[in-house]
Amino acid sequence: MEEIKQRINEFTIEGRNAVIEAFRAGRPIDKVYIQDGCQDGPILTIKREARKRDVLIKYAAKERLDQMSETGKHQGVIACAAAYEYAEIEDMFRLAEQKDEPPFFVLLDNIEDPHNLGAIIRTANLAGAHGVIIPKNRAAGLTAVVARTSAGALNYTPVAKVTNLAKTIEELKEKGLWFVCADMDGTRMYDLDLKGPIGLVIGSEGDGVGRLVKEKCDMTAAIPMKGDIDSLNASVAAGVLAYEIVRQRLM
Amino acid sequence: MEEIKQRINEFTIEGRNAVIEAFRAGRPIDKVYIQDGCQDGPILTIKREARKRDVLIKYAAKERLDQMSETGKHQGVIACAAAYEYAEIEDMFRLAEQKDEPPFFVLLDNIEDPHNLGAIIRTANLAGAHGVIIPKNRAAGLTAVVARTSAGALNYTPVAKVTNLAKTIEELKEKGLWFVCADMDGTRMYDLDLKGPIGLVIGSEGDGVGRLVKEKCDMTAAIPMKGDIDSLNASVAAGVLAYEIVRQRLM
Repeated sequence: MEEIKQRINEFTIEGRNAVIEAFRAGRPIDKVYIQDGCQDGPILTIKREARKRDVLIKYAAKERLDQMSETGKHQGVIACAAAYEYAEIEDMFRLAEQKDEPPFFVLLDNIEDPHNLGAIIRTANLAGAHGVIIPKNRAAGLTAVVARTSAGALNYTPVAKVTNLAKTIEELKEKGLWFVCADMDGTRMYDLDLKGPIGLVIGSEGDGVGRLVKEKCDMTAAIPMKGDIDSLNASVAAGVLAYEIVRQRLM
Repeated sequence: MEEIKQRINEFTIEGRNAVIEAFRAGRPIDKVYIQDGCQDGPILTIKREARKRDVLIKYAAKERLDQMSETGKHQGVIACAAAYEYAEIEDMFRLAEQKDEPPFFVLLDNIEDPHNLGAIIRTANLAGAHGVIIPKNRAAGLTAVVARTSAGALNYTPVAKVTNLAKTIEELKEKGLWFVCADMDGTRMYDLDLKGPIGLVIGSEGDGVGRLVKEKCDMTAAIPMKGDIDSLNASVAAGVLAYEIVRQRLM
């Protein structure tokens, strides 16, 4: 399959303050090069931030950093940032058409953790979903962590960012999609008909799917909970629900 | 300070849900560190539980908690508790008996990542499995990261460590269990009968289930793969397969 347009644009951020600021602003950073022997306060801060965010730290000689540097003022630290570009919802419809399948989109409400976002994009790809839709605010961006945890799926599965998830659901309903949201108080997923054009809405582990978004959904699906604790990990819940859709479509 | 840190590293539970669940499960907790200024609902719950049980509450700056944290995700609360102990396989049989259900165990081969181990224990709990079995060598221990990612499930779901997974499978077969291992080249999971006493064997993402272990299994189950990439995340695959067992048992 051809790779879609979510290509990586790479750029570097140089100097201690710039890198610290980039971390604090939540910019997508792929890895950090630190000059051998640098151990002062700001460098320690950078190391700590990098570890907190699962960012790869590489040590290199001053000469190497001088070579990599675009500004000539790296101060012993250079961060490599990467950013994927978002797709459009039209790309997802096109993908469904190409495969001659009823559209199957995954919508994420309040999923802020990049590991969860990446894992869900990975699952969406393997369950045959045609795209993932996330809201503009309060969502993880398509960072290097997302790319890595998606295990390459970010290169194939379109991810679109929308301003208002509830409004997007309304628009997609007019195009024939049905929406099902995950909720513990819903109908047992096996008892729902999930075979048609569908949007699967997954919320965060803590808050679930927001009220406004939930109200727009046609169905509420519950995963049977047989245990002692509250809820599945969001990406596991997404996997179990997505595969119930796969099962129903295959049967 | 150093002494404290060392001790804490050995016995910590981090994050709001994990600490609340530990209290609710009656785990012996020594003291709780709460970040200065944290006053939301879950924190108040933790304080109430701590007072109820005469557990010392200590307030500390965010930096202090960051330092103490092993997971990097303490969410403003770290509890010091006794280390988790491994269970015996007998405990799992007892649990199945108590619930009057056919035994359902999850066996992990080559799962070395503590996040995956924690997520799988969480899923095992919610899918109603009676225990998780891991091999002695090459497995993640029951660390703070495992406890946290299990979202409290480690308090309820027995985890046993065995010397030789293949040998354990043989012994459990004699007790009436059937074994199914996850493998892409297997039979479509919907076409297998997974209703009886069962051991679900999950391998790592890279290597899958080892040859010796695979040879001992009665069935090989495949999750349908409709996408462009190789494999699901191990904990998502475990969730999808565990819930196929749940579905078949419910139908």
